[in-house]
Order: sequence, then C-alpha cells, then structure tokens
Amino acid sequence: MNEKPKVAVARGRRPSPAYAATRDVLIRCGMELLTEQGFSSTGLDAVLKRATVPKGSFYHYFANKDAFGAAVMDAYDDYFKQKLDRWLLNQERAPLDRLADFIADASRGMRKHRFTRGCLVGNLSQELGALPPDFRERLDAILVGWQERVARCLKEAQAAGAIPGTLNVEQLAEFFWIAWEGAVLRARLVQSDRPLVTFIEAFLSSLGVRAQASPRNEADH
Amino acid sequence: MNEKPKVAVARGRRPSPAYAATRDVLIRCGMELLTEQGFSSTGLDAVLKRATVPKGSFYHYFANKDAFGAAVMDAYDDYFKQKLDRWLLNQERAPLDRLADFIADASRGMRKHRFTRGCLVGNLSQELGALPPDFRERLDAILVGWQERVARCLKEAQAAGAIPGTLNVEQLAEFFWIAWEGAVLRARLVQSDRPLVTFIEAFLSSLGVRAQASPRNEADH
Repeated sequence: MNEKPKVAVARGRRPSPAYAATRDVLIRCGMELLTEQGFSSTGLDAVLKRATVPKGSFYHYFANKDAFGAAVMDAYDDYFKQKLDRWLLNQERAPLDRLADFIADASRGMRKHRFTRGCLVGNLSQELGALPPDFRERLDAILVGWQERVARCLKEAQAAGAIPGTLNVEQLAEFFWIAWEGAVLRARLVQSDRPLVTFIEAFLSSLGVRAQASPRNEADH
Repeated sequence: MNEKPKVAVARGRRPSPAYAATRDVLIRCGMELLTEQGFSSTGLDAVLKRATVPKGSFYHYFANKDAFGAAVMDAYDDYFKQKLDRWLLNQERAPLDRLADFIADASRGMRKHRFTRGCLVGNLSQELGALPPDFRERLDAILVGWQERVARCLKEAQAAGAIPGTLNVEQLAEFFWIAWEGAVLRARLVQSDRPLVTFIEAFLSSLGVRAQASPRNEADH
C-alpha cells in the first residue's frame, strides 16, 4: 500500500528540486482532473496541458499512466488524511462536533468548485472494471485508513459519554464512509450541499444525538 | 420526465412487433452495459454486439446515443420501481422488514453478477460532467420517485407504531438512497455484499430499531 510508484529516474541520481516540483505539479493536476472525471476519461495530454508541462515529457516523471494513477491516489490519500486530522483531532471541539465540522468544510470545498469535483476514491471505485487490478486494493486500503480516523473519533465520543459505549464504532465508521460517498455523489447530481447535510444529520441522529454544529445554516439556497 | 425519447420511426407507421422486440433487446443490453461501465465508456458497437443486432442498424431504433441513454434510464427506472413495489408493498411483512427484504434481494442480485454491476443512477451520476445536461434532471427525478416509495414505507412503519411519529420520513428516505448509492459502490469495491448489510443495519438502527430480517446470515464469507 505504501509502496511508491516507480519513477523513470536513472539509478543513483537524486531527482533535482525542479524535477520534484514538476512531478508534484503533475500529481496535483491529476488530482484535480481525476476528482472531476475519473481515471479512464482523463488523457495524459490533458494532465500535461493543465500542468503546462511539454507534451511527451510525461515519461520522464512516471513509468506509465497506471503508475501516475497510483501516485495520484497516494497523494490524495495524504491530502485527505491531513484534512481529516485537522478536523477530527481538534481538541477544542467535542468529538461529534468534529465530524460535523469536517462535513461543513467538505461542503464549502464542494461549493467552491461548483460541485464539479467528487471524491477521487468514489470516482475510481465507480470505474473499477476499467482500472488496473491493483487499484482495487489500494482504494480499499485508503478507505480503511479513513475509517480508522472516524472510529477513533467515535471512541473519544464514547469515552466522553456522548454516545452509548455499546455502539459498534467500527461498523459505524464503515457506514460513515459508505454514506459519505453516496452523499458526495448526490451533491454533484443536485449541485447543492444539501445531501451532505442530510447525511451528517442522519448519521449523528443514528448515534442517538442531535447535530449540535449542524452545517444546515451554511447550505446553499 | 415521462417524455419518451424520440425514435426513428416513420410518421404514421406503427412499429412492428419485431421492431419493438429488437428495440427492447437493445435497451436491455444497454441496461446491462451501463450498470457495469457507465455511459461514456459504452460504445454503441458493444451494445449492438451484445444484442446481436447488425452493426449500423442502431439508428433505425434510436435517434442517437443520447436518446438511447434516456430510454435506458426510463427502462431502468421502470424495472427498479417494480422491484421496489414488490418488496415495499408486501403486506405480509412489517414495513421495516420490507426495507431489509429489498436489501437482501439487492445483495443476491449483486452477488449473482459477481459485483460487476452497480446502480445505473449511481454510475451515471458519477460521470455527469460528460453527459448531456438533461440527464441530470432525469436522474434526480428517478431518485425522487424511489424516495417517495421509501417514505411511504416509513410512514406505514410510523402508523404501525414501529418508529416514532416525530421522525422526518422524507429526510430519512433521502438518506436511504444516499447511503444506498454509497453501499453499492463499496460492495463493488470489496466484491462482497457486506457494505449493503452494514448500510441496512445502520439505517434501521438509526430509526431506533434493530433489524429483524437482517440479511447478515446471507452475506458472503
């Protein structure tokens, strides 16, 4: 899972800062395009064009499109985990409020991009049949990593007495990301963050609590 | 929404039974392919090949690929509503058990196709950016129709005293389909119906009830 994709750098040579910077730009542009339109319909030309990197130089940076896809997935996972940690480890907020904070932030992010971007993991899961077989394992591992973070947050809520100690937090964390992918999909469909609000309100009320930091008042009108 | 797509039949002529049968086969093959791989990556050649209809004769049946897509969506909606009604109007079962029955049936269906097929609405929602603009409205209308059916079932559960009358059944029905799309996506990813089971158990427990007809014991091992 943490294995880095092979890059086409000659053995024994350290990549120059300029090389690393260009590679990062390609990955960032890949993240943008893949969250918009998935892997299969994203041509390398479009990535290079967005990155303003000369055509034909792609293979200086990645062995092939699959290796590029793997690097984009890893980068997205890193980015997303940082985002999750920012909200879910925030000790100034009660554990369940942190979940609502994360969703409110995700709503702002989706609105900023006018609901054209989804979740990279959801997009790629939808087109699995057309993807390299090892993408499946990688996507599953990414979701498991996110689940662990939500489970930890729910355990903190249990420890604080905010939700019953009898709840199966592992199953609830799995459910959180199941419903998340559905909510992001629906938000793109209706071009509104209302599905994200519906999701977090229903999820929190499934724990026997009312959302205290409901992002409802931030929803689109 | 209920407007039928235009077909390339000469004015004033009634389609022959053979014509209608071939058109139905094309739509059925389209449903299969679109639930597997979505709209953009499905070529008309693949549809014609699966339907064993001669190449080049597509335009006898549909004005273009978009009209075909619209016909497939309508057919899928009809098929799915019949399926929903079969389970959700079953007076021999308590309302909440009917929801669990529907999910158990969906689990069997996904397993039968080895988790290669998703929900047509979810697949098409994922690739909205590449679809004709009117597909968005159609997909949303389909989901609203399904939601009405789940809301009706939840109202029956309220009337029977199985769940609190204070619950917002419209919002819960919306949440049901949000989580459904996420669960189908995840089931395809992990090639197991476990996400569907996680979803229905969590959904029913969010209503304050335990699943009585849990499909857990039918899950893949």
